[in-house]
Amino acid sequence: MLRIEFEDAKNWLDLLDAIRDIVEEAVFTATQEGLSLRAMDSARVAMIDLKLPVVYFPDFKIEEEKVSFAISVADMVKSLKGIKKGYRLVLELKENILRLEFIGKGRHAFEFPLLDISPESIPSLKLNFEAHVKIETDIIGNAIKNIEKFSDYIRFKATSDRLVLHGKSEKGRASSEFLRDELISLDVIKECEASYSTEYLMNILGRSELSEVTSIEFGNRMPLKATYTLAGEGEVSYYLAPRTETELE
Amino acid sequence: MLRIEFEDAKNWLDLLDAIRDIVEEAVFTATQEGLSLRAMDSARVAMIDLKLPVVYFPDFKIEEEKVSFAISVADMVKSLKGIKKGYRLVLELKENILRLEFIGKGRHAFEFPLLDISPESIPSLKLNFEAHVKIETDIIGNAIKNIEKFSDYIRFKATSDRLVLHGKSEKGRASSEFLRDELISLDVIKECEASYSTEYLMNILGRSELSEVTSIEFGNRMPLKATYTLAGEGEVSYYLAPRTETELE
Amino acid sequence: MLRIEFEDAKNWLDLLDAIRDIVEEAVFTATQEGLSLRAMDSARVAMIDLKLPVVYFPDFKIEEEKVSFAISVADMVKSLKGIKKGYRLVLELKENILRLEFIGKGRHAFEFPLLDISPESIPSLKLNFEAHVKIETDIIGNAIKNIEKFSDYIRFKATSDRLVLHGKSEKGRASSEFLRDELISLDVIKECEASYSTEYLMNILGRSELSEVTSIEFGNRMPLKATYTLAGEGEVSYYLAPRTETELE
Repeated sequence: MLRIEFEDAKNWLDLLDAIRDIVEEAVFTATQEGLSLRAMDSARVAMIDLKLPVVYFPDFKIEEEKVSFAISVADMVKSLKGIKKGYRLVLELKENILRLEFIGKGRHAFEFPLLDISPESIPSLKLNFEAHVKIETDIIGNAIKNIEKFSDYIRFKATSDRLVLHGKSEKGRASSEFLRDELISLDVIKECEASYSTEYLMNILGRSELSEVTSIEFGNRMPLKATYTLAGEGEVSYYLAPRTETELE
Repeated sequence: MLRIEFEDAKNWLDLLDAIRDIVEEAVFTATQEGLSLRAMDSARVAMIDLKLPVVYFPDFKIEEEKVSFAISVADMVKSLKGIKKGYRLVLELKENILRLEFIGKGRHAFEFPLLDISPESIPSLKLNFEAHVKIETDIIGNAIKNIEKFSDYIRFKATSDRLVLHGKSEKGRASSEFLRDELISLDVIKECEASYSTEYLMNILGRSELSEVTSIEFGNRMPLKATYTLAGEGEVSYYLAPRTETELE
Repeated sequence: MLRIEFEDAKNWLDLLDAIRDIVEEAVFTATQEGLSLRAMDSARVAMIDLKLPVVYFPDFKIEEEKVSFAISVADMVKSLKGIKKGYRLVLELKENILRLEFIGKGRHAFEFPLLDISPESIPSLKLNFEAHVKIETDIIGNAIKNIEKFSDYIRFKATSDRLVLHGKSEKGRASSEFLRDELISLDVIKECEASYSTEYLMNILGRSELSEVTSIEFGNRMPLKATYTLAGEGEVSYYLAPRTETELE
């Protein structure tokens, strides 16, 4: 038996959206600790790591020690895109069905078939990042969107006093530079730079519906990690593999 | 001679829009009583019944006892969709032309050719509905939009204390339930249920530009009637045939 | 060396947009007087004449007497369409590159390749217009948009007390009439009328991002001139050739 309550149904919809940009189908795991999900995209370039501890939820009931359930996130996003603001949400697992009930003016229930997918075991990453940046989510999101018009890859470079993003192609060059005092924080253990796929960055950065602040960590030849801290100790992290030299034409 | 004035041109545009979702071409009838229209869609599944009594209009001049005129509502909606708010409207019938003049900053006149269509005689429906519901237009509109993603037909069910809408398909199930005190009013003479086409419901319900409140009436094996009461004693009603068993696959 | 500063980067983007609707590629000329551009569309039906005197700019540095540079306006508009409000802009010419730096939260730089196009010598037009009209940009823009649904050409007619726009086709007729006191000013030296392409008028009129007021001048068998006066003595003028009788089917 699993029954989870979200204070604001909008949060669940935003999380689905954040997951859907990485995977179409996903396996959630509920334990006495809370609800979590870890999934890699089909190209194995990006990973999403979602953690919603019990305190995140107004109500969290689980009888088993551990329950996993798989759903088509893409279908669910499509089916629920008309939901307006102002609803609580109760999510309930029933045999081969996930039932969502939106409670506000009226009770609006939706039942989705569970998928027959086993949870993939993805080891957690322990990385000693060389650069730690906190920046307003909108600001970094816009910078990515601007450079996107110029380049398929964006080079991130951190020095002791600034973060620089850079892209180029035959269309021209684009760059965005942020000095320390234009960032919320900048902590550079070692000057570093690495390139990441613009297409993935577009999905990962700029998600201001999750949090107004984004923590970005990266390093030489290391993945980029973007973390959104949610209310109630929840957290969404993305990992994005760096572009390797062999990919260069 | 027919010359009709609308205080707010926007009202005429909203009515055209409401008609256009049922029929592309329509025959209006003006008498000493006012302006009216009754039309069925080509599949004979839905009907719209528009009544604008003389008091609805700041000015209503007709010389004949009765005048009918047919226009392409679809063309008129397309041609006038750029009209901004803040205009009065004078509608005038001239030989084979309908002339609309929008008066505000400047006078903007449009002349549309009349169509050569005779008014169809559609008898008025006298139905003893078993359930009478009043609900906020946005609320029922959103419920339909949500269930639409799941099902081509929506089952309406009224019991003494609630209204329930329900749809299902291989994608899953969706339902919306409204208790008596979540409705403006609920009057159920006899417990009843019937299914209606989602596609038509999408056109008929949720028209908050007509009225903030929708009256919905239906019954076992009966059509659904949705009524919007306009300012000035005007009224737009829709009738929608129930799904018959033979339609079931 | 050319280095120009715009107080609000949005102004440059709006100007690019205004140019792009006439030509895809354009040659700008900078002198000690300021920045200017004159370009005709490929069909030689419309011309844009942009003049930004030195006082328009917070900072304007040029070493040479005259510098011309050509860019793909269409590409630049596409590349910069994500830029948000609230940036200053520094435009700098470097060898075969035009560099734009948007300065606000962070510094966002974009480098565009210059095109190898020579400035076309377009003589300036001296026309003795018969009608001079000033009208709110939104009002004339909406009138054009409304008549556009009816006709490929719009007839402008000015008499001593009014401006009338008129279009017709098999779809019907549309007209907009403005009396003297609905206009900002009306000065008619001689009653006159002429027809202009609706498609071009749609691009030329209604550009309220340039100015809230549009000056329109025309005459019998004469081009129409539309002028937007910018802050800082800048000016954007469009010229549009009249429809000639031989074009009539």
